[in-house]
Formats: sequence, C-alpha cells, structure tokens
Amino acid sequence: MPLKVLEYLNEQPIRAFALRKELSAMNMVDIGEIFDDLSKEQTIQLFRLLPKDIAANVFAYIETDKQQIIIEALTDNEVGNIIEGLFADDAADFIEEMPANVVNRVLKSINDEKRAIINQLLQYPEYSVGSIMTTEYMTLREDNNLIEAFEEIRTRRMKGLHTCYVLRRDKLLVGIVPLRRLLLAKEHERIGDIMSRTVISAQTHDDQEKAARLFRKYDLLSLPVVDKEGRMVGIITVDDAVEIVEEEATEDFEKMAAILPSEEPYLKTGVLKHAYRRVGWLLILMLTAILTEMIISDVQELLAVLPALLVFMPMLMDMGGNVGSQTSTLIIRSMALDEIGISDILTVWWREIRIALLCGIILSIINAARVFIFNSGNVWLTLTVTLTLLAVIAISKSLGCLLPMAAKRINLDPAILATPIIKTIADVMALLMYFAIASVLIPELR
Amino acid sequence: MPLKVLEYLNEQPIRAFALRKELSAMNMVDIGEIFDDLSKEQTIQLFRLLPKDIAANVFAYIETDKQQIIIEALTDNEVGNIIEGLFADDAADFIEEMPANVVNRVLKSINDEKRAIINQLLQYPEYSVGSIMTTEYMTLREDNNLIEAFEEIRTRRMKGLHTCYVLRRDKLLVGIVPLRRLLLAKEHERIGDIMSRTVISAQTHDDQEKAARLFRKYDLLSLPVVDKEGRMVGIITVDDAVEIVEEEATEDFEKMAAILPSEEPYLKTGVLKHAYRRVGWLLILMLTAILTEMIISDVQELLAVLPALLVFMPMLMDMGGNVGSQTSTLIIRSMALDEIGISDILTVWWREIRIALLCGIILSIINAARVFIFNSGNVWLTLTVTLTLLAVIAISKSLGCLLPMAAKRINLDPAILATPIIKTIADVMALLMYFAIASVLIPELR
Repeated sequence: MPLKVLEYLNEQPIRAFALRKELSAMNMVDIGEIFDDLSKEQTIQLFRLLPKDIAANVFAYIETDKQQIIIEALTDNEVGNIIEGLFADDAADFIEEMPANVVNRVLKSINDEKRAIINQLLQYPEYSVGSIMTTEYMTLREDNNLIEAFEEIRTRRMKGLHTCYVLRRDKLLVGIVPLRRLLLAKEHERIGDIMSRTVISAQTHDDQEKAARLFRKYDLLSLPVVDKEGRMVGIITVDDAVEIVEEEATEDFEKMAAILPSEEPYLKTGVLKHAYRRVGWLLILMLTAILTEMIISDVQELLAVLPALLVFMPMLMDMGGNVGSQTSTLIIRSMALDEIGISDILTVWWREIRIALLCGIILSIINAARVFIFNSGNVWLTLTVTLTLLAVIAISKSLGCLLPMAAKRINLDPAILATPIIKTIADVMALLMYFAIASVLIPELR
Repeated sequence: MPLKVLEYLNEQPIRAFALRKELSAMNMVDIGEIFDDLSKEQTIQLFRLLPKDIAANVFAYIETDKQQIIIEALTDNEVGNIIEGLFADDAADFIEEMPANVVNRVLKSINDEKRAIINQLLQYPEYSVGSIMTTEYMTLREDNNLIEAFEEIRTRRMKGLHTCYVLRRDKLLVGIVPLRRLLLAKEHERIGDIMSRTVISAQTHDDQEKAARLFRKYDLLSLPVVDKEGRMVGIITVDDAVEIVEEEATEDFEKMAAILPSEEPYLKTGVLKHAYRRVGWLLILMLTAILTEMIISDVQELLAVLPALLVFMPMLMDMGGNVGSQTSTLIIRSMALDEIGISDILTVWWREIRIALLCGIILSIINAARVFIFNSGNVWLTLTVTLTLLAVIAISKSLGCLLPMAAKRINLDPAILATPIIKTIADVMALLMYFAIASVLIPELR
C-alpha cells in the first residue's frame, strides 16, 4: 500500500483524491512511516493532504527531522492545531528534540493551558515517571451515577480511553473504573459502588524503571501518576512501559559492553558521537593493562627459564574473562528483572562456588590432558596450569557475582561493573596466581 | 498488608473473618505473592479462604510449586472450577509445568470444551504466536446494532475486555471496535459503521518476536491472531508482549555471554543445570585457545631475542575483544530493535571504519607515548605496538559488525556470533599481526 502512495506522490499533478483514498485505509503508524522516504517538498505535500482529524495522530509517528520540516512549512494557526492535538507527553518529547527557534514558535502557537502543561512536563527530571506521563485522562467522581458517567465520557471523547479514574474534589485518587465495568453496571449503581479501591500508582519523581516494574507485575494497561500529596497528575500508558523495558535493556547491553549509553538509534548517531561513546572506556581499559604488563615484566626471568609457561597465558586470561562475564551477565540481568536482590548475595555466591567447582573440574581435566600431551609430559607444568585454571574459574565466578551485587548495594548501576572491568581484574589475578603457583611447583623455577 | 495476613495465618485457630477482610482489600497479584513464603499447610489454608470469584484469578499469580500443592489438595470438582476459570493461555502454561499425574488429573477434571482448547494451545510450536495466545475474546457482527452489542457484552462478562473483534459468519476477522468507540456511537449506528477496518493481526505460526514488534510499532493493547485462512482463533494481550520483550532481551544477554539460554529464573535453576548451561561454550573457547598457543609456540625465538615484545601481548588481545564486543553489542541490539537491517551492511561497515580510525588515533597516540617512555625509547617496538593496535581496532570493529550481520543474513541468531567468538578471532588476528609487524620492523628480529 505505501508503494501506491509513493507512486501517486511522484505523479504530477498529484492525484489528491486517489491519495486520500489510499491513506484513509491505512494505519496511522504506517502513514507516519511513509514520510521516512520523502523529499522535503513531498513531506509537506503529503502532510497537507491528511484529513484534519488524523493529522495530529500521524504527526506523532513521523521522524523528528521530517516533523521539523512540516512545522516550518505550516502557519502558526496550523502548528497550534497540530500540537494541541498531540498527547501532552508526545508534544513534550517533540519539543525536546527541536532547535530553539522552532520551540519558540511552537510554544507561541499553542494555547496557554497546553503550554503550561508542556512546560510542567519538561521540568521533571530525565527518566522520572513525570517526564514520560501524559496529562490526558478521564476522571469521574464517586457520587456520579451511570448516566452522568456516560455523559462525561461522550463529552470529552478521549483518545484511547479504557480506564476512568475516580478523584475526590481535592484531586486525591480513590479508585479506578475500567470501561468494561461501567458497561456491566446496573442502572442504580454509582461510581463509588463499582470502582476498584486497590489502586496501583506511581509518584512523579519515581524512576521510570519502577513504573515499568509495576506494569510487569500487575499486568496493567495504564498506571496513574500522583504527586507527593497523592493528588492525581497524569497517567503512563502501557506502550510507554514497553519502551522503557526496551530502553533499560539497551542501556544495560551498552554499559556491559563498556559503551556510554545513548538513546539515539545507531544510524542516527554521528561518527564522532559513536567514537566518543566508545573511546573513554577503551582508554581506561588500555591503561589498566599496565598492571598485567608490570607483572609480565617482573617474571621475565621465569619465562626465560621455562618459555613454555608463556604459551598458556592467553588461555588462562581469557578463561577468567569468559567465566566472569557469564556470571556477571546472569546476575545483572536477574537483578534487573527483580529475580534476585542484594539479600540473596550469600545464596548466590555459594551457588556460584559449586557451579565453579563443577565447571572447573570438567574443564581442567580436559585441559590437563591436552597440556600434558602438548608438552611431552611435563607433569609440573601441567599441574601448574590446572591449578591456576581451577583458581581462575573460582575467583572469576566470585567476582562476577559479588562485584555487581556490591555495586547495587551502594546504589551504583551493576551493569557498569560488568564484563570489561571484571575481565581486567580477572586478567591480573590469573597472571599473579599462574606465576606464583609456577614458582612454587616447577622444579626448574624454585 | 501481607505482614498482617502472615500474622493471622500463624495464629491458631485462624481468624478467617479478619483474614478475608484483609484479602478483600488486596490486589490479586499481591495475594498470589503471599504464597511464596507459606508452608504446605498454610498454602492450602489460605487458598481455601479465598472468595470463590477471585480464586482462579489469584491462582494464575501463584508460583508453580505452590500451584501443584494446591491442586493436589483440592477435589476434582474444585480443580475443574479453578482451571476453567483461568484464561486458556494461563491454563496451558500451568499444565506445561506440571508432572504427568497432575496433568492427567487436571485434564480429567475440566469440561470437554476447555480441554480441547488447552490441547490445541499446547500443540503450537514453542515461541510461536499460537503458543502464547489466549482464546477468550469478545466477538461482534457487522450487522449488530448497539443494543445487541451491549447485550452481548453484558451476557459474556469477559475479564479485562477493552476491544471487540468483528467477525463474519465464516470467522474471518473484518474489523475491531474498542469499547470506547461503542460508548461514543450514535443510537442508530451499527457495528459495521463504527468499526475500524485497518486491523493489525498475527498468524498462529508467526514467531512471538514478530508479535512483540507489532505491539511496539502500533502501540497496541491486544493483537488478534488468525489462522492461515484469516479466521480468528485468539488474541495476545499486551502483558504477554512485555514479557516477550524481556525474554528476548534476556536470551540475547545470555547468548552474548556464551551461556545457553533458559527461561528459568536464576534461583530456580539447579547448580547442575547452571553448570551445564555454561560449560559447553567455555570448553569450546578453551580449546580454540590452541590457536593462540600455536602462534606463541611458533614465535618463541622472536621472544627470546626481544622479551619486551611479550609485555604488550595481553593489552593488544584485550583491545581486540573490547572493541569487538562494543561493536557487536551495538549491532546486535540495533538489529533486535529493527533499527538496522541486513541491507545497511555497507553503511554500517563504512561507519565503523571511520569510528575505528577516530578511536584508533586517540588510543594509539596515548599508547605510543606510554610504550615509548616505558621502554626507554625503543622506537621500533613503539611503532610495532602502535601499528598493531590500529590494525586490531580496525579489524575487530569490522568483525564486530560484519559477523553478526552475516549471521542474520543466513538466518542464524546474530547474538551467538557475539562477544566470545569475536574475541577469539580478534585474539588470533592480534597475535598474528603483532609478530608479523615486529619481524618486519624491529631491527634485532629481521
């Protein structure tokens, strides 16, 4: 279908009627997507062709650069209509992305009420519940009867409505009524009789992650947001929750790979920004290599006596990194999903120690056989590599669970204490133990 | 509140009235959670105290082992009522977790219709849309008038209803009507007049990831599922979508850390299972270290001449791993979120090459200074380390983007071609280049 729209747009003169007909059968998200591939002129043409009643809805699904093109082409009056037609959170998101001159023009074009709401939303801290909520929601009162409630719903014609919130006169949230419940009510019942009083809500300054957790735990479709005094100020809808869940996972992926997190999609991020996000940690990790370098400089004499020692260094260091990242990944993810908490630290550690023992025995038997054969029967070297391997596995597993949990304990994000840092520590430990064990065990080095 | 429930449960005789009063004010998810901490006897006691109309709802939120205890304590008749009260997808999930004798008893206790539905759901392949859908949904017909529609909704009293599906007599899905739309309709309108005809749907055999993508893209609350002929057979609700998004992220985290994925939470997984999930890849990675070992054995003579060469080996190998995992993580995540596709491969590569150049220049200047000072002015060694570092960064970035995208191209999961495998290849490349460059550049080694 989008192909047909593109075809029509490329014809001169444009067949407005045929185009409108195509568009009317399309989902608004798909219409928004068409704009991705359009030139500046086509963008403006197509947007002007949209029926008035869906223009604002479609606008919310258009990419930022094309949104800007459209706003710059419209009259102040048209801009006002579009922005006032957006949900307040979408309007605030849009304004955050625009350059100052566009922001000024947009704020000038909209009515005072909407402007106040948007300004309020922009003031909530990033990643707070307030910053992602919208302020459009349906309210009822406990003493409303059904006729009043239906009347109110018909008058306000709220987009996407499925739940009504019951407020007292002081805006205190006292209950919720899903539309379904309204339809099933008996004629004489009042809202207070049919509302559910066990309301799950979040506060404006809660972290958005907390909101996502509530959605997950209680299978919600929307979550009311209250201020510190319990007065209702907005709602978060479940599509925001899905987005938060994905954003948080992406952030953890990036932190665990030693990248500064960013919300921009890969292809929308410039090369400079990409390099900036990556070079910092690489630099730190490169400089921490000085530790392993000092150790190696220190043991040059041992290596001169038994060069074969050298051969197994990479394997031992890699094993530390791989084992540590397995454990830290599982622990960090389980904490993110609330499957384990800090109080489980000893349980988790004890479990990891036993897992280390099992993995260690299997790996070191196989490895011992191979080292022994590869080194024409050097028993002491084989024993040294084997003992180091066991120790590396046990220590890396311990680090992999203890470090992220300790980080969480002191309110650091566990994800930044993940793979690369654990790998660096594991490297140092592996080398120290390897040469210590070697100098004790191997006759030539004693 | 849960504390009070526990307190009451610990008193003998149990104060059933006070307990019921506490429970009636609680959310069903929270009631379900109380069971986590109860003994076998208390589990059965508390469940029997639940009001009949919420028992099935609460049951869906109780952990598997406690569910089993409850089912074993109930009569066949009670079991039938509970399981028939569950959504079909929850019932199927429950049955999948139970041992054979419990399954037999459950299937015997429920009515034929429910049994047929559950058996059908159990037959869909794992991770398919069919396996997570539920079969309870509200249907209307195009020629229904409003009175008939409301009548139908009141009669069926469907839990969690917010959208009605409009089917033809042959069950072909032709439109959807949100409850909100029904409430706003005018008296004379029929369902066919007010329904939306642009319906987003999934097929039973689609991958669940595709369904999650549709939820995300179109901000859906529920997604109708049709069979190959377009006949409606079920719906997926948005809470399932949130769960899929999390499961898929967890799976990618695990694969990228060289762990066999599993859906069991950390603490519910036995030590043996944990070890099994990790040891396989560790073994493979350990054995691939044979490659680096062969290289090192091969260059023992070079190292004997210039032992200082050895010092920088770990740093160069680690850099390859870190750079590769940064890139592969970003690429794999961007592909998972549909931000980039296989057709972007050249764009992505060209971008990574420029990022490599930027990062490489910064890192190698700092590194060159430090190597030069640390090695009392060995120009050729410094140059060797610097050139290798640049090459390692460029190659690891290339591998980090090309390998996962190539994997996707041949329908492999990109996540398994991630960090550990790229690290192994980067290790080998780093060593090969290091010694090749050294033997060409460094006068003593020529």
